[in-house]
Amino acid sequence: MKVANIGLGLIGGSFALSLKKNFPEIKRYGMDKNPEHLKKALELNIIGEALEETDLHEMDVVIVSIPVDKANAVIQAVLDKVHPGALVMDMGSTKGELCSAIAQHPRRNQFLAAHPIAGTEFSGPEAAFSSLFENKTMIFCDMEATQADLVDLAKSLIAPLEMSLKYMGSKDHDKHLAYVSHLSHISSFMLGKTVLQVEQSDKTIFDLAGSGFASTVRLAKSNPVTWTAIFKENQNEVLQALEGYIENLKAFQRQLETQDYTQIQQELVNANELKPILNGILKKEENGN
Amino acid sequence: MKVANIGLGLIGGSFALSLKKNFPEIKRYGMDKNPEHLKKALELNIIGEALEETDLHEMDVVIVSIPVDKANAVIQAVLDKVHPGALVMDMGSTKGELCSAIAQHPRRNQFLAAHPIAGTEFSGPEAAFSSLFENKTMIFCDMEATQADLVDLAKSLIAPLEMSLKYMGSKDHDKHLAYVSHLSHISSFMLGKTVLQVEQSDKTIFDLAGSGFASTVRLAKSNPVTWTAIFKENQNEVLQALEGYIENLKAFQRQLETQDYTQIQQELVNANELKPILNGILKKEENGN
Repeated sequence: MKVANIGLGLIGGSFALSLKKNFPEIKRYGMDKNPEHLKKALELNIIGEALEETDLHEMDVVIVSIPVDKANAVIQAVLDKVHPGALVMDMGSTKGELCSAIAQHPRRNQFLAAHPIAGTEFSGPEAAFSSLFENKTMIFCDMEATQADLVDLAKSLIAPLEMSLKYMGSKDHDKHLAYVSHLSHISSFMLGKTVLQVEQSDKTIFDLAGSGFASTVRLAKSNPVTWTAIFKENQNEVLQALEGYIENLKAFQRQLETQDYTQIQQELVNANELKPILNGILKKEENGN
Repeated sequence: MKVANIGLGLIGGSFALSLKKNFPEIKRYGMDKNPEHLKKALELNIIGEALEETDLHEMDVVIVSIPVDKANAVIQAVLDKVHPGALVMDMGSTKGELCSAIAQHPRRNQFLAAHPIAGTEFSGPEAAFSSLFENKTMIFCDMEATQADLVDLAKSLIAPLEMSLKYMGSKDHDKHLAYVSHLSHISSFMLGKTVLQVEQSDKTIFDLAGSGFASTVRLAKSNPVTWTAIFKENQNEVLQALEGYIENLKAFQRQLETQDYTQIQQELVNANELKPILNGILKKEENGN
């Protein structure tokens, strides 16, 4: 079997490495718009061979892991070229716009919209590692539009990773992810901006900040290209989540201005409800589901 | 030497445990408004004996680690009762209001305003551990108001913890901490609220959220009583930091509404500047300074 990864960053690179570990017989090809990434992926043996466009018709599986605003054009072009039994799967963080755009493609049923809930704040092929997806959640969107045997093929490739598989509609996926992922990133990026605006000296932040600050602002280290594309593709849902967040911050601001500390304490007690869920997520991250 | 801890939660309990480890000859007394905490602290041998108010004049050092809105009254009462050579030190997260209120006390020079930049999202005596403060930052505020020999006594008690000692004015302290600590907590609490409002099912959050979400919302697990008191005592500085944060979020919202993705990407690149500082903080947390 021949598998190609288009996009050899953290996600694509890690998936290629998981194939190398679990299916050593598979021939791994790869392509990246960034020549440095391609070179590095070959050096690190993340892929065995560079993929030329003219080789696409030979591939049995093509995985697309690129910024989500570029995914539609690339996937449509790939679908045009692959053989009729090939699976094309994307690994992006947004799905609604993509699935709408691709709905009319004559080979829509060879495409599977997948989203592994896994990542770190690092990027590029050097950040890739074979166990990134192990025990994490994998979401398949609009799965009824994909040929059943190709869904089974996708499942067989991720089987050794022991992922928890969920099925969702692509629109529904984007709505939920806006809250549990995209909004967290905005909150971190803007918290980082706010602190950098005021603290003239990095030394002061370094001296005075503890692990709580580092944890809250960790996502501000994330890749700007990847995340600009996600905000772009999921604009409507992200705007709605952001509006809700700003409203809650403004309510808190009013409570603090009017010294309504009874209400403030109640707000904090309510937010504490997340405790068991957060502890569960951390346990899942550490030990698998 | 006799040392009393008033407040036997995470901070006071951890300090008492560090004394037990590093100065086994010191007699450790303790008091807590919550009888369950006092009982637990005795059971866990965090303190050796319960402190009665009538014993206060025998103490050589009194450490106050209680919600910051209660600290002023307690410290003033303690200063009234201790002997003329005793050190009274508080460990709270806000300092401006406290230092102003205590400025006219006839025994002001026996008081040292201290803030260890250390903590976890857990609370109570069960959460205490002897190494909490090791290699962390310790801030002494308005130190010129404290008798030099008592500052030296405080330094000797924390010497084995190898903390990085910083000196700051109490007003300056509160301004910086509003940004690098208090704002992070509001951001987390309100992010938690926003997600809980929308996601009816805990299961959905659990399934779809990854480590990034857990990291950003971690501080929403923090103690409501402790944090309401901090927001109350540092109201003005927190309001200013919060206003800056909301303005930045609204600017991001406008950029997303107008699809100004060039500017959005630039904002994310700017926030990436925090990378080396965050990596430094995490290293400090893991390995010491």
